[in-house]
This record gives sequence, structure tokens and C-alpha cells, in this order.
Amino acid sequence: MSSHPHSFSRFCMHCGQRLTTAVPEGDTKRRLVCFDCGFVHYINPRPVAGVIPVREDGHVLLVRRAIEPREGAWVFPGGFMDLGETAEEAARRETQEEANLEVGELNLLGVYTRPGPGVVVIVYEAPALSEPSPGAECSEVGWFASDRIPWGELAFDSTQAALRDWALRRGIQVPELPV
Amino acid sequence: MSSHPHSFSRFCMHCGQRLTTAVPEGDTKRRLVCFDCGFVHYINPRPVAGVIPVREDGHVLLVRRAIEPREGAWVFPGGFMDLGETAEEAARRETQEEANLEVGELNLLGVYTRPGPGVVVIVYEAPALSEPSPGAECSEVGWFASDRIPWGELAFDSTQAALRDWALRRGIQVPELPV
Repeated sequence: MSSHPHSFSRFCMHCGQRLTTAVPEGDTKRRLVCFDCGFVHYINPRPVAGVIPVREDGHVLLVRRAIEPREGAWVFPGGFMDLGETAEEAARRETQEEANLEVGELNLLGVYTRPGPGVVVIVYEAPALSEPSPGAECSEVGWFASDRIPWGELAFDSTQAALRDWALRRGIQVPELPV
Repeated sequence: MSSHPHSFSRFCMHCGQRLTTAVPEGDTKRRLVCFDCGFVHYINPRPVAGVIPVREDGHVLLVRRAIEPREGAWVFPGGFMDLGETAEEAARRETQEEANLEVGELNLLGVYTRPGPGVVVIVYEAPALSEPSPGAECSEVGWFASDRIPWGELAFDSTQAALRDWALRRGIQVPELPV
């Protein structure tokens, strides 16, 4: 079962009639289909873009979530991409919105899928260029030395996996973590 | 204007009533909103996963598209991610479906956004492990030496950008191309 919002779709968004499920011609899986207008309602995972901002002394910036899910946990800035923007633009916008922080050149770190909620997290690393402060949906910002990352208080498995890759790329020891 | 299929949404997929547009509380942009059930219909870009398969001699595998858009053009195997699978699983599945090809370890090459249709293309490089043949939606498969890539006959700007990054990473000269 998925918690993706479109998993709960019942009506055709084009004509408003009730959806049913069927395997469309040329497809191999059951999809939500409208027998009135013919629209096949594919459910796509949703891309999220985020940034691990790094200060000159090697500390990384995390923000404390002020909203559910995982209120109170630490995460790097990131959020859902909007239509019309690139992954890089979304990553910068979210870093500005959540941490009031400008970052320099983005360096792709990895792509982390969370199959349950149907989210694909695209993560960049970038140098921090300004002083951060808590923005929308955050209660606190914090700089963490690479050996002080709060591994037990991170928001998502994708947060843990990306920070782990970031640390390993720099040759930094990371604790054994449940995946 | 976007050609994303959800740009044409007119009805709420949860309750079937007509959608309208409004700026939801805490948001800054106009969204499709249902005043009957309160659902906010965010339109997300759709993630695609693909692989540039590489043979031992350094040739890359491309497939010729047998469907629109860009029928007849060359592209590396790839397609829309399904809900419940990871980006890596989607990339392997599409390579199997389109080129009947198994590939080895996936190495993330880049992420390329196509803002017009609202598509985010996640591209891996991987060693080819079997002999390919044309699969679903393809008319032909071809191995191309790095200096024989058909730059003028590639399907999408993301195809060109990913192959360009792949070539540059290997220190291979690429022609000046319109972006």
C-alpha cells in the first residue's frame, strides 16, 4: 500500500466520471482508467529536490522540522519540485525558503527513492554563501560537524542515506545504521 | 504552458466535483483546489529513470524510438518510474523492456529536467551484461563508438545533455551543440 495522494483517486480529473481499474493496451499493469473519456491515470512518484549546505569549516546545515511528518526531526533543506522549474532551481528555492540560505554551485550527490510514499529525493551538496535562519516549516537551524551529525534524530531514511553518502565521499567514519 | 497531463485537470480526483484555482494557506502559488472536499491538487513533475549501457569496448547502446514523441530518433533506454519501485529498479526494468538488456552496477551520471513536459530524467551509466535486441516501443538497437554518437538524431535535450556529460566524464571531445 502506498500513502501517495493519488492512490486514493476515485474520479477522472478530466471528465469527473468514476474511475475503474484495467490493464491498458500495450501495458502490463493495472491502472486507474476512465471508461467515459479514455484517460489512463498513471500514478507517478513525486520528485523532491534538496541540498546539503556545507560551510567552509566542513560543518553541514540541517533544519529542524516544525511540521508533520517527522516534526522535531532534523533534515537538510528540500521539498517537492514545482512544475516548470528544474531540480536545481527547486533545490535552491527550498534552501532559501526553509533556511533563508543562499548556496553556491550544486554538486549532485545522489538520488534516493522512498517507495512507500512514492517520493524520489534528488540531493545536491553545495557551499553555503550566507548566514541561515529558520524559515517556513522549520523551528531551528543548526551547523553540525561531520562527527556530530545527529544520526538518531534524522527525519527520513533518505536523509540518513544521503548524509551517509556525503560523509563516505569525504572519507568520514559513519556509525552502523539500520537502513 | 505545460504539456503535463495534469495541467488539463478539471475535476477533483477524490470527490468528482469541479476544481477551481486558489492560493492555499501557507502557500505562495495558485493551485488547483477543490472547494467541496478541500483537496489541493499539486501538480508534480514526473520522474523518468534511464541507463546508458556501456560495452567493454566503450561503445554505448542506444535504441531507436518506434513511438511518438520523437519516433525514429535515438535515445538510451528509460521510462517513467512506477509507484513502489526505486529509481534504480525502474532504470533496470526499462532497459530490459526496451532493449532486452541486462546491466551491471548502476553509477549515477546526472539528473536532467525537461520543464516543458514536466519530466525529471535520472540517468545512470552501467556495464552491459548481455546481448540487446529491440523491445517494446523500439525499432532498432545500436552500439555507438564515443566518436560516432548520432548527436543530430537524438530524441530529447535530456538525451543530448546526459550523453554529453557521459562523454566529458571520459575525456571525450563532443561537438558544440545547441542546448
